[in-house]
Amino acid sequence: MRIGLICPVWFPVPPEAYGGIERVVALLADGLVEAGHEVTLFASGDSQTRARLESVFSTAPSEWIGHTYWEMQHTVHAIRRADEFDIVNDHTGLLGLAFGGLVRVPFCHTVHGPLEGGPGRMYEQVVSLAPQAKLISISLNQRSPKPGLPWIANCPNALDLSVYPFRRKSGGDYLLFLGRMSPDKGAHRALAVALEMGLPLKIAAKCREPLEIRYFDEFIRPHLGGSIEYVGEVGHADKVELLMGARALVFPIDWEEPFGLVVIEAMACGTPVIATRRGAVPEILVHGKTGIIVDSYRDMENPTVLEEADSLDPAVLRREAEERFSPEHMVAEYVAAYEATIATTRTE
Amino acid sequence: MRIGLICPVWFPVPPEAYGGIERVVALLADGLVEAGHEVTLFASGDSQTRARLESVFSTAPSEWIGHTYWEMQHTVHAIRRADEFDIVNDHTGLLGLAFGGLVRVPFCHTVHGPLEGGPGRMYEQVVSLAPQAKLISISLNQRSPKPGLPWIANCPNALDLSVYPFRRKSGGDYLLFLGRMSPDKGAHRALAVALEMGLPLKIAAKCREPLEIRYFDEFIRPHLGGSIEYVGEVGHADKVELLMGARALVFPIDWEEPFGLVVIEAMACGTPVIATRRGAVPEILVHGKTGIIVDSYRDMENPTVLEEADSLDPAVLRREAEERFSPEHMVAEYVAAYEATIATTRTE
Repeated sequence: MRIGLICPVWFPVPPEAYGGIERVVALLADGLVEAGHEVTLFASGDSQTRARLESVFSTAPSEWIGHTYWEMQHTVHAIRRADEFDIVNDHTGLLGLAFGGLVRVPFCHTVHGPLEGGPGRMYEQVVSLAPQAKLISISLNQRSPKPGLPWIANCPNALDLSVYPFRRKSGGDYLLFLGRMSPDKGAHRALAVALEMGLPLKIAAKCREPLEIRYFDEFIRPHLGGSIEYVGEVGHADKVELLMGARALVFPIDWEEPFGLVVIEAMACGTPVIATRRGAVPEILVHGKTGIIVDSYRDMENPTVLEEADSLDPAVLRREAEERFSPEHMVAEYVAAYEATIATTRTE
Repeated sequence: MRIGLICPVWFPVPPEAYGGIERVVALLADGLVEAGHEVTLFASGDSQTRARLESVFSTAPSEWIGHTYWEMQHTVHAIRRADEFDIVNDHTGLLGLAFGGLVRVPFCHTVHGPLEGGPGRMYEQVVSLAPQAKLISISLNQRSPKPGLPWIANCPNALDLSVYPFRRKSGGDYLLFLGRMSPDKGAHRALAVALEMGLPLKIAAKCREPLEIRYFDEFIRPHLGGSIEYVGEVGHADKVELLMGARALVFPIDWEEPFGLVVIEAMACGTPVIATRRGAVPEILVHGKTGIIVDSYRDMENPTVLEEADSLDPAVLRREAEERFSPEHMVAEYVAAYEATIATTRTE
């Protein structure tokens, strides 16, 4: 299959630090090439890929994130080339989806964000302008606010397991929070849990935007020192070290997170995850087998919850990651989604 | 005719202060209603218009200027309604033009910005995605980098002459600069001319964005005091007062400005304009009759140039503004452009 993959342009593929979408697209592009497909990846010129790379910007214009003029240059370049492919799979956002209405080839768009409220309403409206476009979800829960959109497949995210070594030592002593500084992700809840239980906590989180910095200054910084440590935004190697050494990853989200890449990163390292029952968590973790799911983050303060997490078998976690969240698995699901899109487009 | 007008959403229509596009669209909407057409204006809810106003935002989201997500909400709302109109006239930008490819009704887009370099290349690319869209220029010079685009009409900007009273006193004593703080517009050149000639200068200019503030701090602020005065960004009444009292407006642009609204504002007040021969200047001013055109801003320092400006007849300037830049004139040109777009779309 000749596949055109359009990635958001704001960060290189794969990203140096934070950037879940870019990491997944990088894996997908390489995996599709590996599976014998002819793949063109539209991304910034500082990307690394086994696919054929097409760029309008030699370096990712991160400082212009979210701006129409920059996004247009990237997306228009890709869309004008659509006729060269059997399928175009857009990962950018509403703009890329709308432009799906301008092409005649089979077109599918992966929704990476949540669909509650405004974004969900916008998806409905934009889909009406691009009636041929099909949508791919990354979890079934992500679809729940808008089940009537033209969903063609559900393709959960994956990890390059080779860079998540499974060298689990018998449980470290600290809890770990990984993510970004936002109330949704809940570093402050992780902090409350650690303080309540008297356990050390390491917080590794992106903290760049004004809102993130304000949140950090107000809710996190005052508690640092002693057993609570903020280690900053970490690169891959440090992240893996932190995961391998942690007693458990706490994932106290308070929003309908559409996936939660960090949950499967922990799983791959054999590190137990204690997560609130929100978003895609119940689709990723099997409670009591591959993770611990609680109804409220307050339940994490219950010592038996931590003991349950301690008792999970790291080898089972690793095997689950290998079976359900490998690149090969994701690539196969995407290829099926592309075939379904092509078949549906032909008969419509 | 049932006309859908899409205005940029960043400022209300008409704008409170700076905002040339919004001012022209406000005038066009009211003028089209006056001429008996059924006009729907897509603009922020804090706009004032005689057309039917349709808004997704109750107040203009100025703080998000240039951001895709906000621009999409506004533009998608309008484009989804396209079928209700005989003609859609978009004034937003490249995003609105691209969306012209998603509608079946006759669609024309007014280009308000310059077409040199990147924007011109983007226009070429986006036009290829919206092959039915026609373009309206605001000056013939604006077209010169891209004469091959699908131009359907040239519709110069206009003024509501009733709010530019013609009460010219025999020339004031100061030179006036009106615009925004940018090297292109050339407040620093106006300043050099005034200092060289020993004449007072009043500078009224928008100075909000970081680049504007940096330019102001570096090139303008050090020279303030004495005969050089910065009066800030002015509202309409103050602007008219400044224009009426000025000996001449200096317009020392160093770029291919596609129109130059301030030139016709001065003309309407009977105030002579001394301008460099760039952009649309030679299309707006008749040298020696309705303005003074020089090859380089340095020529403005020649005392005979100022004497030539003094000798222009304010009544001639006013008459020119009334004949060529009235709303009625602009509305007639737009109606002709709409009819041409409809006729061409039908036969294609």
